[in-house]
Amino acid sequence: MTAKDSMTTMSPQSGHFYAVGIGPGSPDLLTLRATRLVEQCDTVISPQAQGSAKSLALEAVRPFIDKQKIIVNNYPMERNGHKTRERWQLFAKDVVKRCAAGESVVQITLGDPLIFATSSYLLQSLTDLMPKANIHVVPGISAFQTAASRFVETLTLQEDRLTLMSATDLHAVENALAQCETLVLYKAGGCIEALMELLRRHNLLDRARLVSCCEQGDNELLVADLSCWQIQPLNYMTTMIVKISNRSWQEV
Amino acid sequence: MTAKDSMTTMSPQSGHFYAVGIGPGSPDLLTLRATRLVEQCDTVISPQAQGSAKSLALEAVRPFIDKQKIIVNNYPMERNGHKTRERWQLFAKDVVKRCAAGESVVQITLGDPLIFATSSYLLQSLTDLMPKANIHVVPGISAFQTAASRFVETLTLQEDRLTLMSATDLHAVENALAQCETLVLYKAGGCIEALMELLRRHNLLDRARLVSCCEQGDNELLVADLSCWQIQPLNYMTTMIVKISNRSWQEV
Repeated sequence: MTAKDSMTTMSPQSGHFYAVGIGPGSPDLLTLRATRLVEQCDTVISPQAQGSAKSLALEAVRPFIDKQKIIVNNYPMERNGHKTRERWQLFAKDVVKRCAAGESVVQITLGDPLIFATSSYLLQSLTDLMPKANIHVVPGISAFQTAASRFVETLTLQEDRLTLMSATDLHAVENALAQCETLVLYKAGGCIEALMELLRRHNLLDRARLVSCCEQGDNELLVADLSCWQIQPLNYMTTMIVKISNRSWQEV
Repeated sequence: MTAKDSMTTMSPQSGHFYAVGIGPGSPDLLTLRATRLVEQCDTVISPQAQGSAKSLALEAVRPFIDKQKIIVNNYPMERNGHKTRERWQLFAKDVVKRCAAGESVVQITLGDPLIFATSSYLLQSLTDLMPKANIHVVPGISAFQTAASRFVETLTLQEDRLTLMSATDLHAVENALAQCETLVLYKAGGCIEALMELLRRHNLLDRARLVSCCEQGDNELLVADLSCWQIQPLNYMTTMIVKISNRSWQEV
């Protein structure tokens, strides 16, 4: 037996639920812990936005699927808090039923389950319905980390402040430009024209990079410098990184 | 051959350098990509702060070490930008020499190599000294993600803004409280008394959680609510999460 075989990791337990982050989409960016839980659990739930052709999350864990039950849960892509919570309440009840029957249940999420992820709705519903000790979260690589790694670009060092937010509220985005050294914007695809205009006004276009469908094979688009880029339609899953400035240590 | 065996991943190439994030310290929180690179490279470099008893990073990859050369690079824990850069310049020259001789070289880093990590100094030096195409970064789970997962606590949802910064500049910390919904502070151990006092003044103590040495075995300390906690000396590697408020979608 090698040191690797003797390594301890989390195994799925009967009656337990695991919200598992699977990273940006490439199977080899799952952690060993995530891999083990997906491989050994009874049921894998994959949430899928209504209207999507396929579940990207399910594709990413395909190498680890064998005899597990697979459930695809369709949810509406709507900015309606009430409807969203109602739908996830239903999904939560199904998880509770399965756990009560002794199943171990894993819900997979692209990225990290606690960073702009629908898993948060499910977790919030579950904490009212089952013992907290039976609910687990496994972190995953989030899109901004993968994006930065592709550009070999430091996100934060010394006294830098990094702010991570959705690009949807442009007024909030403009405010954030003055409050941090690194600004990361998720969901930058839907409002790319207005975003570009905002960055141009602040002379920051050449400090902005963009990744669409990062680590998702041929769909991936990398733009290292937005000042040399012609706008084109972008996927919802687009991450922008604006490296505004640096904030060094105060030397002692 | 199973689907898993046929999975493609990054293998270390002769003459290439890889800055590899290994997560918070538990070996099963490495990604498969990180594991493969550590297992198959010629040389593993582990940076170690001067005065540390052992390299935590090296402990975390122990299960994946066999015949690789191991180099421990000691660097000063000093807030001196010039000295720091000088030291990493030296380390960079050694990496370049090894790569020129055909070695594949991995530097391991706790957390993510681009988030408050000394790897950034090495990468900055290397880009001047070797072809950019031979320099790679593999993202890793950062401490705030692990901390949040232990509390099953949503970091960001809908229009929330998350700010990640070092706790060392208290004036900047106080400003940040008004500019985001979730504030994550690294290096919170050294100034914990002043931080607690600041949070008390803003009525945020019961919205603050703290993790020290997360996923580092018996050394781990979790505090779910700082308003019920007696101050005690803390490790340098302490992460605080303050969940200040929520910012919902504007309903359409």
